[in-house]
Amino acid sequence: MKEKIAITRMKGEEKSTADDWVASEGPLTITLNRQEIVTFLCTPGHLEDLAVGYLLGEGLVKSVSLIEEIHFFKTEGILAVQVKSVNKVAMKTLGKRYLTTGCGSGSSFYHLMDEHMIDTVPARSKAQLRDLQAAMKMLQNNSPLFACTGGVHACALFSGEDMLVLREDIGRHNAADKVLGWFYRQNLAPEQTCFLTTGRISSEILLKVAKAAIPILVSRSAPTSLAVDIARRINLTLVGFLRGKRANVYAGEERIFA
Amino acid sequence: MKEKIAITRMKGEEKSTADDWVASEGPLTITLNRQEIVTFLCTPGHLEDLAVGYLLGEGLVKSVSLIEEIHFFKTEGILAVQVKSVNKVAMKTLGKRYLTTGCGSGSSFYHLMDEHMIDTVPARSKAQLRDLQAAMKMLQNNSPLFACTGGVHACALFSGEDMLVLREDIGRHNAADKVLGWFYRQNLAPEQTCFLTTGRISSEILLKVAKAAIPILVSRSAPTSLAVDIARRINLTLVGFLRGKRANVYAGEERIFA
Repeated sequence: MKEKIAITRMKGEEKSTADDWVASEGPLTITLNRQEIVTFLCTPGHLEDLAVGYLLGEGLVKSVSLIEEIHFFKTEGILAVQVKSVNKVAMKTLGKRYLTTGCGSGSSFYHLMDEHMIDTVPARSKAQLRDLQAAMKMLQNNSPLFACTGGVHACALFSGEDMLVLREDIGRHNAADKVLGWFYRQNLAPEQTCFLTTGRISSEILLKVAKAAIPILVSRSAPTSLAVDIARRINLTLVGFLRGKRANVYAGEERIFA
Repeated sequence: MKEKIAITRMKGEEKSTADDWVASEGPLTITLNRQEIVTFLCTPGHLEDLAVGYLLGEGLVKSVSLIEEIHFFKTEGILAVQVKSVNKVAMKTLGKRYLTTGCGSGSSFYHLMDEHMIDTVPARSKAQLRDLQAAMKMLQNNSPLFACTGGVHACALFSGEDMLVLREDIGRHNAADKVLGWFYRQNLAPEQTCFLTTGRISSEILLKVAKAAIPILVSRSAPTSLAVDIARRINLTLVGFLRGKRANVYAGEERIFA
């Protein structure tokens, strides 16, 4: 997941050579029932989770129980997923999913995305701010690839104080897909879980988490306007800028207790 | 480019309501000679530059001189680009561009990407570390959307100490495309320019800059292994972790003077 390379370090007028670590990046192509779907540029590791998270998140496969086989052809860089049936509607609109008639306000956009694909998240789960703070600390203290390279994002799934899974990747979306793929394959109930990320929350990340019916999404960074808008419509709790004892709650505030 | 929303601020056990700014995100679909090419989720503003940067960066249009008309259909969220001719080879492989037979080392991948699309960057330009430091400071001090929302990346093009253009976007790639689109439309010579970004350097960002024959790429963040690998092969100078007086030079070290 990382490579050691020789670099030149500069500090003011000093130049020296040193060994340094950089995060690995490589292409991975996903096929679904032998049809090419997407090529990621991603960090190696947990590629099956990445594929499952992506395929279910995009709605191309409706349930993890439909997956019959996953095979990684390492030499070819192809991860082949075989399923009982694909979601034909989603396959048809693949690559055209975001087409909309309402730019700016984005109304048509999330009508398409949420009313057809995303249910309102049930309100019953709750979280304490101090648990989220502890979780964010744990996320940051358990990201070895970031500690070593400074060049990746980390995502994790928590249940209360317990970290269920943590994944790092050079791409924000890939790290999210790796966590969500793991989650889908475990057949866990989403109600008591909470999704943490080091990265910014765009509508795409938010929709991935919403698709998994995870009720609480927490970042140490900022959300976008569209992410906030969708979160409010589907009643997903969105917390941003969780740093030290501070946090901004952008949506679903009733789930967060001081 | 930003929206004011009411949020709940938490600080330890205190809860209060406040107004806060978030960066705008909306979908934008690019069509090329009436064919749908891609839909971005991006920050509004400089959308023509975004389209030009993307289309030339992906090689779908070979030269900015081929562009006949760009029209933004605001209600539909569609930016329609009309060109004299498209690059048929690139159009054919659109969406399959990254397919490769060599995952991990990525050798086939950048054979495809660089030998066919990217020339070796000429060696003659040079930069002083102190100019790059001043440029990074200027980039950070002139990012109003980041200052206000904390939720965007900024890219800029410099010539020596002069900032030619700066663009912000919720997406790292979009910010790069907006700067490069501006660059292509100005018909500037790339030799003495230097591309700065606040974001991580993946192979995609590096290839966009290389395509424009800009010889020096500087980030305050980390590069990936593949970005370093490609930079070394095509002789593009890659500087990362430029923070204060320190910097790491990953490739093309002969262009950087203390």
